[in-house]
Amino acid sequence: MTIDDKGWFTEVCEDAGTAFSLKTSRKLHQEQTPYQRIEIFETEQFGSLMVIDGFIMLSGRDNFIYHEMLAHPALFTHPDPKNVLIIGGGDCGTLREVLNHEGVGRVQQVEIDERVTRLAEQYFPELCVANNDSRAELHFDDGIRWVKAASAGQYDVIIVDSTDPIGPAEGLFSEPFYRDCYAALGDDGILVQQSESPLLHQSIINDMRSAMRRAGFEQAQMLGFPQCVYPSGWWSATMAANRPLGHFREDDASNKTFATRYYNSAIHRAAMALPEFMRQVLK
Amino acid sequence: MTIDDKGWFTEVCEDAGTAFSLKTSRKLHQEQTPYQRIEIFETEQFGSLMVIDGFIMLSGRDNFIYHEMLAHPALFTHPDPKNVLIIGGGDCGTLREVLNHEGVGRVQQVEIDERVTRLAEQYFPELCVANNDSRAELHFDDGIRWVKAASAGQYDVIIVDSTDPIGPAEGLFSEPFYRDCYAALGDDGILVQQSESPLLHQSIINDMRSAMRRAGFEQAQMLGFPQCVYPSGWWSATMAANRPLGHFREDDASNKTFATRYYNSAIHRAAMALPEFMRQVLK
Repeated sequence: MTIDDKGWFTEVCEDAGTAFSLKTSRKLHQEQTPYQRIEIFETEQFGSLMVIDGFIMLSGRDNFIYHEMLAHPALFTHPDPKNVLIIGGGDCGTLREVLNHEGVGRVQQVEIDERVTRLAEQYFPELCVANNDSRAELHFDDGIRWVKAASAGQYDVIIVDSTDPIGPAEGLFSEPFYRDCYAALGDDGILVQQSESPLLHQSIINDMRSAMRRAGFEQAQMLGFPQCVYPSGWWSATMAANRPLGHFREDDASNKTFATRYYNSAIHRAAMALPEFMRQVLK
Repeated sequence: MTIDDKGWFTEVCEDAGTAFSLKTSRKLHQEQTPYQRIEIFETEQFGSLMVIDGFIMLSGRDNFIYHEMLAHPALFTHPDPKNVLIIGGGDCGTLREVLNHEGVGRVQQVEIDERVTRLAEQYFPELCVANNDSRAELHFDDGIRWVKAASAGQYDVIIVDSTDPIGPAEGLFSEPFYRDCYAALGDDGILVQQSESPLLHQSIINDMRSAMRRAGFEQAQMLGFPQCVYPSGWWSATMAANRPLGHFREDDASNKTFATRYYNSAIHRAAMALPEFMRQVLK
């Protein structure tokens, strides 16, 4: 069988010489926004699929891993997170996970493209169930400008839930942006950002860590996790802080008051283990 | 860009509605053996690629993860492994890893199709560097029959490095086979077998564990790891034994006398962490 016939969505990862395809049953929507081209498909086995500029953003079947790993490790590492900023995150899956933490009093989400959120409300309603939580503020604005304008020490956790470091999100992978994040975080503050594939993008992960360090963060910690619909099926987030990141509120994580499907305290510890080749890369 | 044009090898995973493709530069070899159809490609970014009956077996770029995870967790869990049996494993990558353990005195590998090994010697020579080790015996025979004929308690570790549980390898995922493995293992013996994708094949993993338990093994432990070229990019092995599998010779693993690229003692611990949904599945 080939996938030459209609009914498959394929994302090619040119640099890696790989491609990943999902069997679709129909295209539900497409539009060109001021920022990007968004497509929504119904797939046969992976639920709804959102594609931006030809790159898979999320599927209904496996987004729980990504969203839980962007939210919970950072929130269970900070001693008492109350104020959280999400940059990007327009599908609202990360927001939903953050709001599961009862101690969080305010979450500002700054997504540049309102259409991402409106389409998520329509096609991924399960991710948007917390959008009307009184602690949530949905802003549609430029995240780089937002952080630059923030008050010093305003946030406990900043989560950068962005697209790849090409195009509109490029500035989110740069030292000036990390400096602004550093200033906007309190003493115990933690920055966490999606950081591409450990197999395919080692130089991106390494460059990001170097830029975070130059921006003032003394500690950085990669978190690895599977993500079927992203290139190589293996993805990462990187946490940065001025406090040791190897320790977290393990009892709170073990006794968390909300359900998860991927994250638990054992997975949190496990995600911090670096494969031998990454130890060399990140030396 | 589409992958309709020539020069891509695509494996479709029908049940999951997914497909994975690698950009190839040329086909190096193809043949029909008495057992299966073997193809070898040169890829642009993943080194050599071996495909059997249309399914990707291994690529030069990422096979180190699979081979290290099949060999080292089991060997560092057994207190003193001396006699090892590998069922399948014709590409010899697992064999190479096993022979890195200095205490191992004898490794018998039983691969049904000699052509897999001969082609590995030609196209994956780096995996076959230990084939002439005086401790290694390469047999080309039926693994199910081999284990049935083994002496009681003959082996310390049995590694089942097979294709998927359809076709020739089906019998390797069954209770009668596990009974024979159980009998062929010593008191501290450990069986480890590749066990498909945690995301896509939960029922296979669960059925395998049930069959292992019915065959006499009291303990089972899933090990998760990334594997880019296999469906979902996330794979597993399952260990079975009559001893607790959560503990291993951590000091020996930390001070191992050979180089690895994925495995280390932190990765060993990490691989045993079960995602929340797998805890439910494997209850």
